[in-house]
Order: sequence, then C-alpha cells, then structure tokens
Amino acid sequence: MDSGRVEAFSDGVFAIAITLLVLDLRVSGEGSLFHQLLAAWPNYFAYVVSFLTIGIMWMNHHTILGHVKRVDRPLLVLNLLLLMGIVAIPFPTTLVAEHLRDADGKVATVTYGLVMIVISAGFAALWVYVVTHASSLGAVVPQDALRQSVPGFTLGGAVYAAGTLIAASWSPVAGLIIFGALAIYYLFEHLPSPAEEPAAGKPPAG
Amino acid sequence: MDSGRVEAFSDGVFAIAITLLVLDLRVSGEGSLFHQLLAAWPNYFAYVVSFLTIGIMWMNHHTILGHVKRVDRPLLVLNLLLLMGIVAIPFPTTLVAEHLRDADGKVATVTYGLVMIVISAGFAALWVYVVTHASSLGAVVPQDALRQSVPGFTLGGAVYAAGTLIAASWSPVAGLIIFGALAIYYLFEHLPSPAEEPAAGKPPAG
Amino acid sequence: MDSGRVEAFSDGVFAIAITLLVLDLRVSGEGSLFHQLLAAWPNYFAYVVSFLTIGIMWMNHHTILGHVKRVDRPLLVLNLLLLMGIVAIPFPTTLVAEHLRDADGKVATVTYGLVMIVISAGFAALWVYVVTHASSLGAVVPQDALRQSVPGFTLGGAVYAAGTLIAASWSPVAGLIIFGALAIYYLFEHLPSPAEEPAAGKPPAG
Amino acid sequence: MDSGRVEAFSDGVFAIAITLLVLDLRVSGEGSLFHQLLAAWPNYFAYVVSFLTIGIMWMNHHTILGHVKRVDRPLLVLNLLLLMGIVAIPFPTTLVAEHLRDADGKVATVTYGLVMIVISAGFAALWVYVVTHASSLGAVVPQDALRQSVPGFTLGGAVYAAGTLIAASWSPVAGLIIFGALAIYYLFEHLPSPAEEPAAGKPPAG
Repeated sequence: MDSGRVEAFSDGVFAIAITLLVLDLRVSGEGSLFHQLLAAWPNYFAYVVSFLTIGIMWMNHHTILGHVKRVDRPLLVLNLLLLMGIVAIPFPTTLVAEHLRDADGKVATVTYGLVMIVISAGFAALWVYVVTHASSLGAVVPQDALRQSVPGFTLGGAVYAAGTLIAASWSPVAGLIIFGALAIYYLFEHLPSPAEEPAAGKPPAG
Repeated sequence: MDSGRVEAFSDGVFAIAITLLVLDLRVSGEGSLFHQLLAAWPNYFAYVVSFLTIGIMWMNHHTILGHVKRVDRPLLVLNLLLLMGIVAIPFPTTLVAEHLRDADGKVATVTYGLVMIVISAGFAALWVYVVTHASSLGAVVPQDALRQSVPGFTLGGAVYAAGTLIAASWSPVAGLIIFGALAIYYLFEHLPSPAEEPAAGKPPAG
Repeated sequence: MDSGRVEAFSDGVFAIAITLLVLDLRVSGEGSLFHQLLAAWPNYFAYVVSFLTIGIMWMNHHTILGHVKRVDRPLLVLNLLLLMGIVAIPFPTTLVAEHLRDADGKVATVTYGLVMIVISAGFAALWVYVVTHASSLGAVVPQDALRQSVPGFTLGGAVYAAGTLIAASWSPVAGLIIFGALAIYYLFEHLPSPAEEPAAGKPPAG
Repeated sequence: MDSGRVEAFSDGVFAIAITLLVLDLRVSGEGSLFHQLLAAWPNYFAYVVSFLTIGIMWMNHHTILGHVKRVDRPLLVLNLLLLMGIVAIPFPTTLVAEHLRDADGKVATVTYGLVMIVISAGFAALWVYVVTHASSLGAVVPQDALRQSVPGFTLGGAVYAAGTLIAASWSPVAGLIIFGALAIYYLFEHLPSPAEEPAAGKPPAG
C-alpha cells in the first residue's frame, strides 16, 4: 500500500482525536457560572496538555512515516496499534479533568501516564521497524539513525515514567505539569525530519 | 466518479467511526476510581475488538477499491450501504461494553455478531460486484479472483456465525474472544492486494 | 480558491455528519435489553433514512462541484450555508428517533421535513449559481443545464413538502417512509454528472 | 514539512470542530416538543454564529497558508496553538446556548468573546510570522502586506472587544448579534488571497 494513504487515514484519526478533546471542556456543579468556570481549571489544564501532546505526536508520526515510500503489513499493524493508543487519549484526559482535585487524582494521573508510556513504546516500535526495514520500505534513513534516536525516545519514556511516579507518590498536579512540559519541550526539539536528511544522511566519509 | 474521491470519503468515515469508539471508554458506578477502572474491563475489551475490527475492515476496503479506477452508481450504492453498517459498529460495541457482565450479555453479544455478519455480507457483495464488473470499472483482477476469495469470505462469515452461536448458547465473553481472534488473524492474512497482483494475476499458463 | 480544497473540506463535513448519526443508535427505557432493542425501531428507521439522505446529498454535492474548476467568494458562502443545513441533520434525526411513537411525533417529523426543504433550496441555489456563473468558475455545463435540472429539483422539493404535509396531517411514520423512499429513488436517479457530459453537453445541432 | 500536509490536517480539525456544533442543537425542559423547540432559539442562534465564525476562520486560514510553500517548526507551533483555540469554540458556544436567557448569560457571552479575541490574536500572530519569514517559507506576499492587513485585524479585534463589553455591561443577546454580524461581514470582506495577489502585489509605482 502506498504510504500516502496510510498517512491520510492516520491524519484523520489524529485530527478527530484532538478535536474530541473539546468534550472535556465543560462545567458542572453548583453555584454561579462564573464560579463553575473557575472551578473547571483542571478541565482546561488537561485539555491543553493533551492537545499539545497529540499535536506533537502527529508531528512525530509524520516525521517517521515521511521516511518511507511504501508500507507493508507489519507496518500497518504497528501503525494501527499505535493509533489505538492515541485514540484512547481522551479517556485518561477525562479522568484527570474530573478527578485532579479529589482523592482519585493520583489514580487518574497515573492512568494518564501509563497510557502515555504505552504510546511512547508504540512510537519506538514503529521507528525501530522503519529503520531496520528501510530498504524494503523505500526509506532513506541515516546510517546511524537508530543510535541517534535513542536519546530522544529514552528521554520521552523516562520523563513520562518520572511524571507518573511523582503523580503516584506526591502530587497529581506536579505529574501533569511534567507531562505538559515534555510536550512543550518537544514542540521545539524533535527527530531529524526527512527534509533535513540530505545533511544528516550523507555518508560520514563523504 | 473517480475512485479516489470515494476512497477519501470512505477513509474519513472509517477514521471517524474508529475514533468514536473512545466514547465507550468510560467508568461508572460506585467505589473508588481504581475499582471503577478495574470493573470497566468489558469497555476496554470491546474497544480493542472493535478498533482492530474496523482497522481490518479499512484495510480490506482499500484492497477492494484499490482494484478499480473509476466507480459507477451501483458501486457507490453498495459502498454507501457497507459504510452504513460500519458506522453503526459503535452501537453494538456500547451494548457489549455495558452488558457483558450482566444478564443481557448474550443479547448484546449476539447483536454485535449479527451486525458483523451483515457487514461481512456487504464486503462480499462489494467484492463480487468489482470482480464481475471489472472491465467497466477499469479493474485488473486475476482471472480466478472470485474463486480464490471464496475461502476468505466464507471463513469470516463462518467464524462470525460461530462466535454469535457460542455467545447465544454459552458465553458472551467467549463469543467476543472469537470476534477479537478473527480480527487478529486477519491482521496477518488477507485478500491479495493490487500491489501483489503482478504475480498472482499472470495467466496460469504464463 | 481551488475547487479541490473546498471539496475536501466539504467531504470532511459530510463524512463527520453522516458518522455522528450513530449517536442516535441507542436504547433506553425499562425492561430487558431484548425488548429495549425492539422498542428502538424508530432509532434504526431514522438512522437509515438520514444516512441514505446524507449519502445522496454527498453524491449530489460532488456532481455540482465536479462541474467547476475554481470557486469564488459567493460560491464559498453558498456552500457554507448549505453545509450549515447538512451538519444540522442529526438534530431533527434525534427528534424523530425519540418522538416518532409519542404525541410529539408530528412536530418532530415536520421539523425533519422543514430542514430537508431548506437544504433542498440550498442545493438549488448552489446549482443555479454554478450554471449562471459557469464561465467565471471554469465550469462546462450543457447549454440547457438549468432547464434540464428543473424537474429533478422540483420533484425533490415537492416530495419533501408532501411528506411534511402527510406527517403533519396524518401519520409521522408515513412521512418518514416518504423521506426514505425519496432517498432510495435518488440512489438510482440523479443529475447528469460531469463525466456524462460529453454526451449530454454537445450542441443540440451537433 | 510540506504545507499541503499541514493544511490537510488543519482542514480536518476545522471540519470536525464545525460539525461538532450540532451537539448544541438540542431541546430540553418541560412542555410539548413544539414549545421546547421554540424555547431553544438560543441554541440555534449560537449554532449559526459559531458555524459562520468557524467557516470564516477556515477561509482565512487557507488564505494565510495559501501564501506559503513549506512550513517550519515555529509555524507548526503557531498553527497548533491557533487550532487549540478553534477546537475550543464549541465550549463557549454551549455556554451561550444554555445560559443566554438566564442570569449567567453575561458570563457566558463574555467567555465567548474572550475566546474569540484570543483566536483573533492567534490569527494575527500566524499572519505576522508568515509575512516576516516570507522568503524562508517560500511565500510570495505583497511588499506592504503587513501594513495592508492592519486595518482588517484591528477591525476584527475591536469588534470582538466591543461585543464583549456590550455583553458584559448591557445585553448578552446584543453581544452575540455583534459577533454574528462580524462573521457575516467577513463572509464578503477578507484578506487579499494569493490568487488575487498579482494585482494587489505589484509595486505601487508599477
């Protein structure tokens, strides 16, 4: 299958998942609307963190699939499993939005972190598959692409693990701040993209 | 109408239907969030089975439409009827997620199976139409494409029927496991795709 | 603006509106799930009628925009107003699904019919604009396209009006059957499409 | 990254956000359906204003991105932040639809206006970035594009501010009418589009 078709389908899924986050923007409870709006800050917080996170994941997804020209069945399967995690993001987002301020805030934020760790592993699997099957996928990747990308993936996973631990042992709000900070960090730091490859991909001895 | 446009519209419908499944990821009931999350396993189970199933159906849809260059009115109608079934999938998914553990679990799982059987028949109808009208659709299909595909479609229908019967007579959970196993099986086994045709499609005497 | 971009956006809106209809597939009330499923027949009925209707409208939209090469501001505005009607379809669909069997069935079905009449007028306006501004839109339409299309648009509007009157004065179910029959009729009868124009569009004296 | 991909993703987000507005079309309360439908006029009003507003924003987004050939990381980030505002629009729309007639109408409409002001600032930031980085984005913009666009952006921001103040100090309905009037005004008045540039962009002394 042509990779463009998989990207178009994945783009649609990303676009819908990111837009469904608006369903978490809602107020509830007693009192005037003004007080309800103020009290709903966990909803806004969770919305912003998840929106930025899905946005970053969309960019990373394009960076990875931008390397390949065609996709095979294992890549389709890995991509489908990855999307299964991304589509689920509104679920822990809702949990965090509803419970951040009550006794279940830790459980909600840990669930959020665990979903993110699973998704990070999915991205790593997709990337490893692309790099190790570059020739059959028509992909042009730098010789040491895998080694180069280890720090990035390790950092992401480690920060999600740290945030999850902090949420579990100390403060759910601090955990969520860490997840948000990671998204903001990745807005500016990222995998080398295919467009930048001509420089990064040339033979070291060239 | 150009087949690309029908595929783009269908892709959008598939992407939205698969993403709406997240609405079934929710907790309810009494007790701590932790216990609610554990008790919601039928929701996760139904989510995974339906997500993989719609994912497979998307791939099969592409495989079928990948054979044709243009579409005529009957193909559009068949495609619309097929999409009407696929868009409905979140409905029996919700039924299963809500009732798998109560006395209505059998009715919910049988409803799920019946929807799948109807959709399987829709796929078979679309495929038969493409093969039997190959020339007017600009399709290149192997001479014996219809005969070759009989086992695959028969298997799918038979497994859905078996799962439905098992859910009705014995265990809804077992029925749902069968539906999930079928999806996983089809992740790796599938119709011959257009890209693989040059080999499969050459004249037997060549 | 290039017409392809408007079509892509419109396609997305059609695809989402048609998929959101699944939210009307739900059961409620007392009793076993089996009886709830049987009692929910107005939901299935409304789902099928609206699904086929939006599907037909999507095809008609493509037929109309398939004539033009570029779009101007008035066409964008007309298209946006038309989409505003189409996106609203799930609303009267929900009303019909919930009230078809109770004393408010007439009001619900009349509302449904009125929305359809407004949308039909929107399609007629879009088509008239395309035909009367063919040269500036880069459109190739038969000389007598406008006259040829009068019967089709008149029929659609008249049948929606008749169904609405029948729903108001006699039976909401009969009105909904008429709306569904119109959709099925248009599945097979339609405006001349751009692909068929070479024949339809040649000079009468050619 | 190619700008076409960003536009496709953004189009998807716009299409979904505009379609989710239908979730605000609903009736509630006591009495016959007919009276509920009449009483729901704030829902229709808010639906129309937000639908036209998102529609206009979609057109403006295309006008801005239509100038560029490729996108860089800062543009992606600005675009993501802008989309985060647009995806949120259904939230204040719901607030207005539910509270326009009660004591919380002012708070709801002011919230609506503030979201619009933030989004307007986002559009201005995107446009300023495109104009000031035209060469690296492959954009062709008129020499004095920035100066030319000041009146348009100033008008939009000023009208949103005025509508918000009027809603806060006097009448939420009047504020919402102003927001709707602005959308209708921009249906016919807009930024110079890339297609019109050859005329608008030629040197004044040419």
